[in-house]
Amino acid sequence: MKKLSLAAPLAALFAAAWLALPAAGAAADLGQRGTGDLGIVIERAIGRVLVVENSGRQRLAEVEGLGDLSHAAAVFSRDGRYAYVFGRDGGMTKVDLLTASVVKRVEQAGNSIGGAISQDGRLVAVQNYEPGGVKVFDAATLELVADIPATYGNAGARSKVVGLVDAPGSRFVFTLYDAGEIWIADLSDPARPTVSKHANIGRQPYDALVTPDGRYYIAGLFGEDGLAMLDLWNPGTGVRRILDGYGRGEQPLPVFKMPHLRGWAYAGGQLYLPAIGRHEVLVVDTATWTETARIPVKGQPVFVMARPDGRQIWVNFALPDNGFVQVIDVPTRSVIKTLEPGPGVLHMEFTPRGEQVWVSVRDKDCVRVYDTASFAEVATLPADKPSGIFFTSRANRIGL
Amino acid sequence: MKKLSLAAPLAALFAAAWLALPAAGAAADLGQRGTGDLGIVIERAIGRVLVVENSGRQRLAEVEGLGDLSHAAAVFSRDGRYAYVFGRDGGMTKVDLLTASVVKRVEQAGNSIGGAISQDGRLVAVQNYEPGGVKVFDAATLELVADIPATYGNAGARSKVVGLVDAPGSRFVFTLYDAGEIWIADLSDPARPTVSKHANIGRQPYDALVTPDGRYYIAGLFGEDGLAMLDLWNPGTGVRRILDGYGRGEQPLPVFKMPHLRGWAYAGGQLYLPAIGRHEVLVVDTATWTETARIPVKGQPVFVMARPDGRQIWVNFALPDNGFVQVIDVPTRSVIKTLEPGPGVLHMEFTPRGEQVWVSVRDKDCVRVYDTASFAEVATLPADKPSGIFFTSRANRIGL
Repeated sequence: MKKLSLAAPLAALFAAAWLALPAAGAAADLGQRGTGDLGIVIERAIGRVLVVENSGRQRLAEVEGLGDLSHAAAVFSRDGRYAYVFGRDGGMTKVDLLTASVVKRVEQAGNSIGGAISQDGRLVAVQNYEPGGVKVFDAATLELVADIPATYGNAGARSKVVGLVDAPGSRFVFTLYDAGEIWIADLSDPARPTVSKHANIGRQPYDALVTPDGRYYIAGLFGEDGLAMLDLWNPGTGVRRILDGYGRGEQPLPVFKMPHLRGWAYAGGQLYLPAIGRHEVLVVDTATWTETARIPVKGQPVFVMARPDGRQIWVNFALPDNGFVQVIDVPTRSVIKTLEPGPGVLHMEFTPRGEQVWVSVRDKDCVRVYDTASFAEVATLPADKPSGIFFTSRANRIGL
Repeated sequence: MKKLSLAAPLAALFAAAWLALPAAGAAADLGQRGTGDLGIVIERAIGRVLVVENSGRQRLAEVEGLGDLSHAAAVFSRDGRYAYVFGRDGGMTKVDLLTASVVKRVEQAGNSIGGAISQDGRLVAVQNYEPGGVKVFDAATLELVADIPATYGNAGARSKVVGLVDAPGSRFVFTLYDAGEIWIADLSDPARPTVSKHANIGRQPYDALVTPDGRYYIAGLFGEDGLAMLDLWNPGTGVRRILDGYGRGEQPLPVFKMPHLRGWAYAGGQLYLPAIGRHEVLVVDTATWTETARIPVKGQPVFVMARPDGRQIWVNFALPDNGFVQVIDVPTRSVIKTLEPGPGVLHMEFTPRGEQVWVSVRDKDCVRVYDTASFAEVATLPADKPSGIFFTSRANRIGL
C-alpha cells in the first residue's frame, strides 16, 4: 500500500478559502478587566481573531489583519494580556487582548507552523518549514534574539521543524521532520543558545508533545510503526522507541488528516494518543511506556485531549467523521458520549478547570460550548470558519 | 507522652502581634493591564495585603482594612481580577487587584480558617470554626447562598471545619475536626445543596488536600497514626485508611506547629506529605497508597510543596528550624539544597511554571524570590510580617 506523504494531508489542511467578507465590526477596547478568562478564536479564512471570555461565554472584540491563519496557533504572555499568533504564512502577530489591537507583526519566515513561549515568558520561539529552523524573539519587543537553522547532514540541507515545545529551564525542544532528529535548545543565555542533538530517532517525525510536567518529549513517526521518546530529565540516555509495532504498519489505512500530538491527553499516569490512520486511541502507561489499551472510536482521531481533571478524554476526527466528537470515560476506557456539533470540527479547548469545553465548527460558522458533566450545549457563538481556540490559562502551563 | 491538643499550636500560630504601623502608602490604581502575573502577599499583623507581580518581581500597591489576617488564605476569581481573602476573624474580603481596593467585606463568622472557590468560579465557600460549618457565597455579590452547619451526633453539637477544597462538579469537600467526618457538598443547585457524609474517618482530622486532578481527598489525622483517604470518583467505596502506622504513634515528638496538607506536593504519581512531629517527608505511591520512602529533613515540615514540573519538592519547617527551607530532588529523593532565608519562613509560592519561588520571611519583614534552578536569590521585596503568598494562577487549578 502506498504511503501517503506528509505533504498531502498538510496541503489539504492548509487550503485556505480566502473569503472576501467585509469587516463585521470595529475593534473594541475592553477597558480595565481581568484577563484570566479571556481567549481567542482563530477565524482562519479571513485573517481575524475573536477575543472571547469564558465566564459569560461571549465574543468581546475582533482583531483583523493577521494574514494567513490556516492552521494558526497561539501562545500567551505570562500576564495574560497578549496573544502571539503564528500564521501559516510565517507571520507572527502580537495581539493586545485588552485593546483588541495588533501591537506588532513580523514576517519571520516563508512558511511556519506554530510556536512556544519560554518558561519565564521572556522568549517566543517559532518553528519554520521554510527556511527550516527555529527563530526566537524577545516577547516584549518581537526583536529577533536567536536564529537556529535546522541544518543537517553534510550538504547543508535544512529540515522542516515540527513539534516545538517549551521545557523547564529556558529550553525549547523540537523535531526535524526531514532529518529525523530531536534538538534541545537551551536559551539561558539567549544570545548564545546551546543546542544538543539526538539523531536517528526514526523516519518522518510529524509532530510531538511534552508531558504536562515537562519531562517526557514524544515524537510521532509517520514513516515508522512507533513513537520516539526522550526523557528530558535524563537526555543522556538518548531517544527510546516506544509502542514499536503498535499497528501503524499492519494494515495502514489512508490517512485523511494528520493527527495532532500537542495537547494534554495525560490522565492518571496514562497517555492517550491518536493512532495514525486507525480508528483507535492508544493508551500508554508512562511508568512502563507500554500500550495498556486501545479504545475504538468513530473515525481517525485528530485531537485527543484530556479534560483538566483527567476523568474524560475528548476526541475529534478526520474526514469523513469530522462532524463528530466522542468522549471517553477514563475509568472504564470506553466511549460514553457521541456528539455531533456539525461538519468541520477543527479544535476543542477546555475551560481552565474543565467544567466546559469550546468546540469550533468550521462549516457551521460557529463555536459551540458544552457542559462536560451533562454534555448539554450551553452556548453557541457565531464565528467565521473558526479553527483554533486558545484560552489565556495556557500561559501558566508547561508545554502548551 | 502527652499529646498536644490541636488548640495549642494553632493558638501559637495565630498569636497576632498587632503592630500599630502607619499606612506605608496609598492605594494605587494599576490601570489597564493583564492579571495573569499578579498576586497578593498577606501582611498578617497590620491587616493589609500587598498587590505584587511576578514577571518583574515588584510590589505594585497596598490594600488595607482587611482585619485579622493571621493565618489568612486567599482564592481568586476566574478572571484573575479579584482576590477573596479569608481572615482569622471570620471576615471575608473581596479585593480588586486592578484598583487596589476593597470591593466588599463581610463578617461571616466568629472564627474562620480559609476557603475555596467552585470549579465554575461562581461560588466561594468558607470553612468556619465558630460557629462550626461552611458558608457559601455568590462570588460576584458576596450574598450568602447556602449555610451548611457542621452539626453532628445527637446533641446538636457543631464541629470545627477544616480541609475545605473545591472538587469538579460544583462540589466542596471538607472535614469535621470534632466529629471525625468527611462531607461532600454538591452545590449544583446552590439554593439546595445536597450533602453526603462519611463518618468514623479517624480522630482529630486537622487538615486535608485533594490531588491536582480533584480525585483523591486525603485528611491528616492528629489523633491517630495514619491518614484518611476518599476516592471522589468512587465515593461509595467509602473512606480508606492509608499509611496506617507510619510512625506518628511510635515515638511522637512534641509538635511545634501543625503541618499544612493543602498544596501540590504531587509529583510523578507520588504524594509528598509532611510527617507530624517527625523530621521526615513521607512519600506515598498513589497507585497503591503505600509508603515508598521517607526522606529525612532538617526539622518538622510545615509546607511540603512540589515545583509545578514536579522535579523538586520545597519544604519549610516549624520552630526551631523555621529559618530554613530545604529542596528535595525528586529523582534521587534526597535533599539537594538547604537555604536560610531567615527566621519565620511562613509560606512559599511558585511562579506558575516554576522557574522561581517566593518565600515569606516574617521576622525579616521581607519576601525573598529564588531562582529554582540555580537557587540564587533574585529579588527581595520589603513586606510587613509577611505570611501567605498567593498568585492568580491558582484560579485555574483544582484544589487550590
